[in-house]
This record gives sequence, structure tokens and C-alpha cells, in this order.
Amino acid sequence: MAKIRVGVAGYGTIGQRLADGVAMQGDMELVGIADLAPTLSLRALRENDMIGANDVRYDLYLVDGADPDAFKRYDIPVAGTFEELCKKVDVMLDSSPGGVGAKNKANYYEKYGVKAVFQGGEQNSVADVFFHGYANYEKGVGQNYLKLTSCNTTGLIRTVDCLDRAIGIEKVAITIIRRVADPGDYHRGLTNALQIEKAPSHQALDLMTIMPHVEATGILVHTPVTHGHIITVLATARDGKKITREAALEAFRAHPRIRTVTLDEGFLGNASLFKYARDLGNRRGDMYEIGLWEDSVVESGNDIMYAINIPQESVTIPETIDAVRAMMKMQPTREEGTAKTNEYLRIGRFKK
Amino acid sequence: MAKIRVGVAGYGTIGQRLADGVAMQGDMELVGIADLAPTLSLRALRENDMIGANDVRYDLYLVDGADPDAFKRYDIPVAGTFEELCKKVDVMLDSSPGGVGAKNKANYYEKYGVKAVFQGGEQNSVADVFFHGYANYEKGVGQNYLKLTSCNTTGLIRTVDCLDRAIGIEKVAITIIRRVADPGDYHRGLTNALQIEKAPSHQALDLMTIMPHVEATGILVHTPVTHGHIITVLATARDGKKITREAALEAFRAHPRIRTVTLDEGFLGNASLFKYARDLGNRRGDMYEIGLWEDSVVESGNDIMYAINIPQESVTIPETIDAVRAMMKMQPTREEGTAKTNEYLRIGRFKK
Amino acid sequence: MAKIRVGVAGYGTIGQRLADGVAMQGDMELVGIADLAPTLSLRALRENDMIGANDVRYDLYLVDGADPDAFKRYDIPVAGTFEELCKKVDVMLDSSPGGVGAKNKANYYEKYGVKAVFQGGEQNSVADVFFHGYANYEKGVGQNYLKLTSCNTTGLIRTVDCLDRAIGIEKVAITIIRRVADPGDYHRGLTNALQIEKAPSHQALDLMTIMPHVEATGILVHTPVTHGHIITVLATARDGKKITREAALEAFRAHPRIRTVTLDEGFLGNASLFKYARDLGNRRGDMYEIGLWEDSVVESGNDIMYAINIPQESVTIPETIDAVRAMMKMQPTREEGTAKTNEYLRIGRFKK
Amino acid sequence: MAKIRVGVAGYGTIGQRLADGVAMQGDMELVGIADLAPTLSLRALRENDMIGANDVRYDLYLVDGADPDAFKRYDIPVAGTFEELCKKVDVMLDSSPGGVGAKNKANYYEKYGVKAVFQGGEQNSVADVFFHGYANYEKGVGQNYLKLTSCNTTGLIRTVDCLDRAIGIEKVAITIIRRVADPGDYHRGLTNALQIEKAPSHQALDLMTIMPHVEATGILVHTPVTHGHIITVLATARDGKKITREAALEAFRAHPRIRTVTLDEGFLGNASLFKYARDLGNRRGDMYEIGLWEDSVVESGNDIMYAINIPQESVTIPETIDAVRAMMKMQPTREEGTAKTNEYLRIGRFKK
Repeated sequence: MAKIRVGVAGYGTIGQRLADGVAMQGDMELVGIADLAPTLSLRALRENDMIGANDVRYDLYLVDGADPDAFKRYDIPVAGTFEELCKKVDVMLDSSPGGVGAKNKANYYEKYGVKAVFQGGEQNSVADVFFHGYANYEKGVGQNYLKLTSCNTTGLIRTVDCLDRAIGIEKVAITIIRRVADPGDYHRGLTNALQIEKAPSHQALDLMTIMPHVEATGILVHTPVTHGHIITVLATARDGKKITREAALEAFRAHPRIRTVTLDEGFLGNASLFKYARDLGNRRGDMYEIGLWEDSVVESGNDIMYAINIPQESVTIPETIDAVRAMMKMQPTREEGTAKTNEYLRIGRFKK
Repeated sequence: MAKIRVGVAGYGTIGQRLADGVAMQGDMELVGIADLAPTLSLRALRENDMIGANDVRYDLYLVDGADPDAFKRYDIPVAGTFEELCKKVDVMLDSSPGGVGAKNKANYYEKYGVKAVFQGGEQNSVADVFFHGYANYEKGVGQNYLKLTSCNTTGLIRTVDCLDRAIGIEKVAITIIRRVADPGDYHRGLTNALQIEKAPSHQALDLMTIMPHVEATGILVHTPVTHGHIITVLATARDGKKITREAALEAFRAHPRIRTVTLDEGFLGNASLFKYARDLGNRRGDMYEIGLWEDSVVESGNDIMYAINIPQESVTIPETIDAVRAMMKMQPTREEGTAKTNEYLRIGRFKK
Repeated sequence: MAKIRVGVAGYGTIGQRLADGVAMQGDMELVGIADLAPTLSLRALRENDMIGANDVRYDLYLVDGADPDAFKRYDIPVAGTFEELCKKVDVMLDSSPGGVGAKNKANYYEKYGVKAVFQGGEQNSVADVFFHGYANYEKGVGQNYLKLTSCNTTGLIRTVDCLDRAIGIEKVAITIIRRVADPGDYHRGLTNALQIEKAPSHQALDLMTIMPHVEATGILVHTPVTHGHIITVLATARDGKKITREAALEAFRAHPRIRTVTLDEGFLGNASLFKYARDLGNRRGDMYEIGLWEDSVVESGNDIMYAINIPQESVTIPETIDAVRAMMKMQPTREEGTAKTNEYLRIGRFKK
Repeated sequence: MAKIRVGVAGYGTIGQRLADGVAMQGDMELVGIADLAPTLSLRALRENDMIGANDVRYDLYLVDGADPDAFKRYDIPVAGTFEELCKKVDVMLDSSPGGVGAKNKANYYEKYGVKAVFQGGEQNSVADVFFHGYANYEKGVGQNYLKLTSCNTTGLIRTVDCLDRAIGIEKVAITIIRRVADPGDYHRGLTNALQIEKAPSHQALDLMTIMPHVEATGILVHTPVTHGHIITVLATARDGKKITREAALEAFRAHPRIRTVTLDEGFLGNASLFKYARDLGNRRGDMYEIGLWEDSVVESGNDIMYAINIPQESVTIPETIDAVRAMMKMQPTREEGTAKTNEYLRIGRFKK
């Protein structure tokens, strides 16, 4: 069977990782990446002779408005225009800045019959379905345009969907302790301050869009760190049912994209998981799984409370790959689709 | 009526503020403070000729083990020994390092019939009652030894007790986003990391000791900031009753020690409240009230969720003064006792 | 002799402290302050019934473009317009946002014969003299428009001028380890990063404008802290003369606006000085003196190296008050002018 | 020619990277690593089936005091004891905690005729020569015990030695803006504070030990960041010679282990270099080269001033590999030794 041809629009924090993720899929071909300027990320690729993950060559196409001379100055080879890339791919993973994805759809994707997966920065209306690989895979099957949940929502839904399938969930209340910047950011930051946002947080609202049978609310607080959000979740079961600590842990431990960890092992906080990913030799020190502290899981009456770690830079990659599988009907069910993604990304290899 | 004679043992972060708080009470006399070494805080007092809040002279007594010569080197006058101070006071506010309070009780307080209020670092067993000015004032009336709740618990209970009296509370689940150090600390700190602790947090357990009819649990996460904790609370009413946003806000707004604030005004996070206290000209930039963001108050089914700010250095001062009032039977009820404390500390003047 | 009538334009971080500083001068009258919107700082003043430092009432005037209704909503009393304030004062301390000062000069100061002192955000051309109380007081005497050096330059020049008068300085090379935000800032910040700027830093260039006989260069690095810059200085004497550690320390110790401190005392870094100012009970926890670590003073061949702490929020206040004294010919010499400022601000009281 | 057999004692931050570095050398064999407890770093290796850099299997040996059962619990295979490892290697790279290296030498290295390279935590007396690959390679040739300079000193000396060979250096004055913790550290940290140490810093003293003809002093300030130190250097040439900006830049640009960068490219600070290393796909996001900002290079009279970035986790790896080459006489000269190290570590591939 021919490999699905995939392009990546926007080689930023998410785009780079999408390209790497695609390059690791045995049944997909990374046709090319597209960007506007010779960023440091592109210069790093150039320093490696344009070789990225899995020794795959990353061909670069220029989006509208790019200045070819700027790339020549850094000796970065260019393969063509974004429009040319669009003609060559089945699916575009669009991680352009917010709003640009909608324009790309209007200008190119519709014109050339390219399917697309948009990231969290786009309006929901850009897509047919607001998508999550585990929570609503089947809704994405055969669709042309999907939008991925944002990093926090992606990780959060993994756990709520996990409990929902095991036990049945009616309501969640979340507290998002958010990293304020990515490593290497200077344009945003926070120094010795916790900054609060108007409640409910968009992540709670997004969860309800994906899982309409669950009532969700939440409060978000920005904190001056760069390595991963921490979210606490209080989940209430349907029909007054009690969620025991054991039942919750059993469900979490069985989920391939949830890494249950303990303080005793040395996972003391978000930075431990970042360090562990570096120690694993993961490309860029990335982690596809969310962390879930077993020490944090406590009962609150009939409810269950727990804390998770969201590696913001890389957490959405697996679900985006799932989206390609669903759209292209590569696998018809969530079980098959997510399993194939996990296999190629080596997710869940840490489970016994 | 003669003023109640009060001493302060330990002139650290809390002790300094206790001394200042006592000096502001029209019906109490600050007899003296006691410490071990010529710390920067004592040197600052010396630079001001030992004059502290309300132009009150702070006489210094030396605890056992202090080296008088060390104080002479910095020209800090000494009024006597800690034992001598004990003989002169009705109540000692003991903010010594954890464990020292119990020794002081055994060595001096019992011997000289001195009542004492201990801070959160001591074991509960050191005191007759684990005390909170608003939640269980009457239990402290006439007692000899009280222990104050810690900073987070003190502020948290203000809000839970407030809702409990207005509506009736059965259960709370809290997330504590904790400052990891005080301004000026170098011996502890955290850099670009969120650190998690084993759940449930001690604050949830302490709340249940003070308010045994409420079930509480919680998760605590340390963050790299110094200006005030933020706690999110999910509160459930008794008997399946719904807590509306309006009812919660009405209760919070009426509480003298809760300052309800909004993002629109410019209160964007914990650092805004610290800055505001500095702008108020409050001594040391301290704030006795907790902040509560109206923008954070959201309904979660029948439950209510909200976020508060805890000024860790100064939040326990009013409840400690309340403790003196209760022990010495200065005022027999919580309404009278807390009102008198509030009046002298100018708490609640910001309420319309 | 009639008091000099002073106004303050812009009640931000600097303006608040200028107003407080003027209110402490026995020979000046704070006629009023002017601002655009009901900021938290103004609301704090309102909470105190518009009473600021030294129990002085701060009358508020509105600058062009202000909406009187916005102030009514917070019940903040307004005394008149900025133009009316201009008619009542001899000198305006202009701490408006950068560029506004020049407009104020064109629109009002020249029209009403008001002298003005501008802060570092304005172009040098707005003023007759770029001013520093210790380095070039006499150049400011009788002038109409002075511009103050910025916070780092003000503190740096105190030490370089101090060494220059004692020993004779030919060259300095500085490294500025800069705080990136003030306490309470959310609009700027830096998280887990050190950010470098193009060398030479403007502080080195500014120093050369004030002290044209000294050659200066420097590198500036932003760091994620809010309490005070640290600057290291390498100073070279004229004529190949050696600067001994003893000679440098002797000069520094004698300067009223330099507080020499040691690690042994507990002054471990910039946060120690902020804490000490709070412990002193200084309004807003401010410090007018710079800190200089005796432990940092080391010889480098014939040169001397040392490190200082710059309390960015308040360090320029004394030199701005000096500027008023010079412009209004209140004192004809730097010795007399700075001494009077120091007396009213209680600077140097810590010296033996 | 047979490969040199190398072991690594201590699999911490440095040890992991030494093992990876050795695994990349075509003329060396990584015989094994040794450690005490099943740390997260070892568990990460286990998760990868003990496969590390270059697909090399890392055999684990247990040091004295290790509990084999602890390793069994995590299913980590053990190859033998540290003593057994000692018998199998020509050289041990000892990155044990400070002081343990000296014991290892007394107990095992001398007994089994194993040469060793110690890291900065050991006393200088443990080694025959305090070593730096570029500054004094020849002194290490054929020796049995070498001690490496610490991270800051290693990077600093690269630049001073570079200028010294090109121009001749007599004196340097440095300001070290130090990261306070590594990513993933919780046991040390600093929050909203800059902490100063007694001058001169040990790095200046160490530089003089390696380069005795240079006079050095310096001031060190800890800052709350984890990604790389920044050092500013003021260098004075011998004989009153002027160092021009052009001459300095020319020398720096030619050095394989110095990466000259600019702000315009996007290298805005230390975090940019960390991000760039991640983007390069470097294992753990490591960087062997130091960064040097061209924008920071400024003349100060006859002197030159510049700023460098020190990637503290990995900067000493190349010079440690150089040490093996020198001790084992694999290459007799610094030019040949460092060139071979650079080749295998792919250092300098970014140079035009």
C-alpha cells in the first residue's frame, strides 16, 4: 500500500515535532515542510544537511511572502513554493500561526483537495470536527478538516476519557498550573508572579465540546516555568457512583499515553519528566506521554482527584498523527488508529 | 482596664509581624521581643533606634544560648533574658523555630503561668486547641495554650468558614499553588520547576481538624515565586444544595478579612496584591486580608469554585491577635473579638 | 523662606516615589500629582484618603485625555487639570511615559515658566543638562530643564564619581546583571533565561556624557528577577596609578548614598537588601542607597573590581531632589545640596 | 590498533555525557559505567534496553555499597562490581561525587594500574596535572592522573587561551553570571534573587593554575536559571598592546569549540543556545561548543570585552576526551588530540 503523503506547514515548536513524528511513521511519507523565514530551527536543520528524525530528508518549501534571498544567505536549500507542496500531499498538518491556517485552507487546501489538520490556534469553524484521537476518533474518519485540541486539553482528555470509558464521568473541575513560556522564549515570560485568568478556562470549555456529556469548569494560573503544565482534576462519576483510588489507578496504568510515576522513583515535578525524556535520548528531549503522579490520586467523597504533567511542546503530536489515520481511513477505529500511532512513536514501550 | 502584656518569642518573618501587630493594639502592650542572634531584622530595628510599628520601642530579650557579645558588636541594646521577659507578660506569642515552642512551654510558660500562642511549626499536642479566629474562637476562650493554623490554612478557612456559615459546606477539594520561598530567602528555592507533594496536603487535614464536619482533600504544588500562594477551592454544600455564584460572592464580599478583587481593576495575580500593599504604605508591604478573584468564581454543577491569594508572611497575624483576645477573655465571642482585632489593624477599611 | 512648590507628573513606579520624596522635604511643598487613569496606585492612595508619606495629602490633577468619570467610579477626588497644576508649581518632576515629558514641556512648562526634571525615558535633548546630584550638581544650578540619569547609571556614577574624586579614574568596564521587571509587572518578564543586549550598554555611554573624562564600556544581561540590579565594575585609575582595596573601601564607606555591606552580616544578594528595606519599615520597602559588597572588592593588577546593588524603583529619587535644589538655587554647591536632600530623606543615618 | 578501553564512574549529569562521548569515539571502547543506585538516569537507560549513544550497549557495574536488590526491583541488569570494571579498562573517567574519586584512586586505580581523569569536584592533589585540552595538552601526555577544569573554567579558558595564542594575554577580569541549578534539580534553586559570592571566584584562581602567566580575578553571581552560564571577560594584552575587535573576532571564529553567534540570527541569550541544541537533535539537547556573542565584543581602551555562554552539563566532555588521548599518548600534540576529539564529536561542523 502506498504511503500517505504528508506535509507540514509552519516549522515552529509544534511543526518541527509534527515533521519528526511523521518521519517516524512507517506508513507515511514526509513530503516537505514549509515556512516563512530562515529561523534558528531551520538553520539547525541546515547544519544537519536537512536531515531530521529517522534520517529523513526534510525538503523545505516557502510560504507566500517568504524572501528566497534570506534563505540563500544562510545557504538553506529550497525545494519550491508552498503551493507546490500542496500539490504533492494528501494531508497537510497545519501548524501555522493562528489565523493563517484558515487562509491556507481557502487558498490552497480546498483548491487542491488537500485534507488538513489544524492546531489549537485556529477557530473551531475551520474544521469539520474538533478532534481527539482517544475521545472521538470515529468522528474524524473520512473527514477533510480536523482541528486538534490544544496541549492542555489533549492531555487532560486522555485522562478524563480514560476514566469515562472505565467508570463513567459526569463532571470535572480542573486547576491548570500553566507554564508561561517554552524553553528559548524571550517574547513572553513572567518573573516572580502567578497570573490568573478569567474562569472558566478555555480548556474546560473545549473538553465539553469534545465530550458533551461531561460538565467541566476550571481555573488557570500562569507560573514562571517552561517545562510542562501541571493540571489537577477532580472528577465525579455518573449516577452518584464512587470512584475508588484503585479503580482510577488501574485505568490510568493501562493507558498507553499516560505514564504513571511516583515521587519515590524521583519524579518530583514537571522538570523531572523533562529530564527523563532527555535521559531517554528522545529527540529534543520530548515526551509524547503525559505524566500522572500516583501519589496525587486521592478520593474526595465519591470523587477522585489527581494531578498530571503536560509536556506542552510534544503532547499533541500523537493525536495529530491519529487524525491523519482517521481522515485517510488508514484505520477505521480508535483502537486500531491509536495503536498504530503508538507503535511507530514507540509510545507505551515503558509499560510492563 | 489595664493593657494585656504581650511578648514575642522569635523575631523572624512571623515574629516581626506579630510584634508590629501587637504594637497596633490599643488594649495590648508589647513588653518585648526575644531572639537568639543579631539578625538583619534586629539590625534594621537597631538602625531605627529599636522603634517599630506605631512608634513603639521594641525591647530585646535574649533566649537561652544567645551570645551577648554578638549583640554588642552591632551595638544592639539588650533588656534582659527570655526568662525575665516571661515574668513580665500575660501572653507569649511564640514564633520560635519548630520544636522550640514546646521547650519554652515546658521550661518557662508553665512555670510562670504565661499563656502562649504557638505557630504552625509546633506539634498540635503543644496546645489545648488548634485555633482559628473565625472558625472556632469560642473554643479558645480562657484556654492557656493555643496553636494557630499555618498561613494557607488560615486564609483557606476564612473562605470555607464564610461559606459554611452562609450556606453550609460539606466537602472541599483544594489545589495549593504554593510560593516556594519568602522574599530574601536563599536557603530554599526552586528554579524553573513545579514540585509536587504527596496528597492529601496537610492543609486539607488541618481544615478537617478545625472544621470536623467538612471533608477535605487537596494537592499541593510548589512554584518558583515569593509573593503569595494561590489556592483554588471547589466547595460542595450540604444536603445537595446548590451554591450560586451570587450567593458565594455576597458572602465573600461581606467578610472583613477577604478582599474581593477583579482582573479589570488590575489585580492580575499574586504580585499585584503585594504591589498594592506596598502602594498602600503598609509596613513591610504586608497585607492582612486574603485576595479573592471575583473572575475566578464559577459554578460546577451544584458546587462553587474560586481562587484566593494568601500573603504568607502576614496572613496569620490577625488570627493570632484574635487568639490573645480569646485566651485572655478580652472579648467573649468571635464577633466581638475579631471586630476589635480588625479595628486596631485597620482591616476592612476598604469595604464600602 | 517660602517652600518650593513641586508637582509630580505621572504617578507610576517613579512618580509615586518622587511624590513621597518631596513630601519628606522640609523646604518643599508637594502641590499635587497628575495622572491619566485610576490605576491601582491611585486607588491605594484613595484607600488611604489620599494621604501619602509624612501624612501629606496628595491632590490629584488629571492630564489631557483623562476620563473624569473613570475616577468617579472609584470615588477618587480630583483637584483639577494638569494645566492648573502647572500654574501652581515652581518645578515639575516629570515621570510621564517616555516622550510625554517633551510634549508637556512644549505645551505647558515653557508657557507657564515651570522648571522641570525629566526622567531617563526622555531624549537628552529635552533638557539643558543631563544631571547627577554628585557628579555634576553645579552644572544644574539655575537651569530650567534637567534630565536625570536612569537607575543603573545613577547608582553606578555614585561609585565612579566617588573613586574619581578620591583617586582619579580614567576608564571603567561594567557588567550589568539587570532585573527584567519590577515587582507586580506582568507585561514584561523572562522565564529561565538570561538575555543579552548589544554592547556597549547605554549606561556606559551615559556615564561618559556625565563624566566625559572617563572612558566606559559595558555588557548588559537581563536576568529573571525583580529586586535590584547588580553591576560589576572594573575601574582603572589615571596615570597608571594603583587603586588599593583599602583606598577604594575607604572612599565607598564615606559616601552617604553607598551602603557597604558584607556576606557575613547576611547580605547574600539583591533580595537581602530589599528585605532589609522592608524590615527598616521604609515606605514601600524602598531603599535610597545602593549596596556595595565589601567581599566583592578585589584588585586586578592596578585596577579595582567591585559589585553594587541598584534598587531600581527608588535609587533616582535623591538625585532628582538634588536637581530641584540645583535648579531653584536652594543650595549652590553639591556638598550643600546633597547634604540637605540626605537629611530630609534620612540617608546616611546608618553610617557610624 | 586496539581501541582504548574506557570506563565511567558515576552516571550523573557529567557521567552520562562522558559515556555518550566515549561511545562516539571510533578509537575508544566504552567498557562500562558504574553507579550506586537505580537513579532515573539508569532507569531511562533500562527503558532503552541499556542502549545509549551510537547504539552502544552500556554495561552497568555497581560501586561499593550499592544494593543489588534495588536494581532488581527495576529489572536493571548488572554486569559486575566496580572493581571488576577497573580490571577491564585502561582509563577511568571518574565523575563520582566530590571526594569519592580520591578513594577510588587509592582503592582501585593504583592497585590495577588504571589511569584516571577526575572532574572538578576533586582536590587538585588527586591528579598529576590540572588539565585543559587546549591550554596544556602536552603536560598531560603520558600522565596517570589528570583533573579536568570545571565547566565555567573550561569554557573560559578556551577563549583566553585562544586570545593568548593569537595576541598574548596578561590579565583578565571576569564576571560570572551563573546558572544556579541544572534542569531537573529540586535540591538547589534560587527564586527571584541574585546571590553573590566572595571574590575572587575560584574560576579566576583555576585559570591562573592552568595559565600561570595570566593574572585573573573575578566576581560570581548566581541567577535563577538552568540553561547555561554567561561570563563577561575583560582581557588585557601583554606589553600594552591593543586588542582590536577585529583581531579578537578573527581568533574566536577560527576556534572549533567556540561558536560565534549574533543577536540578529536569534541567539538572544543562554536559552537560545539550549533550544538550538535541541533543534539540532543533539542527544539530551547538549552542546559541546561554548557560544560567543559577536555583539558583545567591544574595545575598552587597549583591552577587549566579550560575553560567552557555557553549557554547563556538556562543555567539559571534549576536554575530558582530550585528556584520555593525552594520557594514553594516542596523539602527542594538542593539535592532533583535540582535532581527533572534535572529529568524533562532530565539533566544528558548523564552521564554514
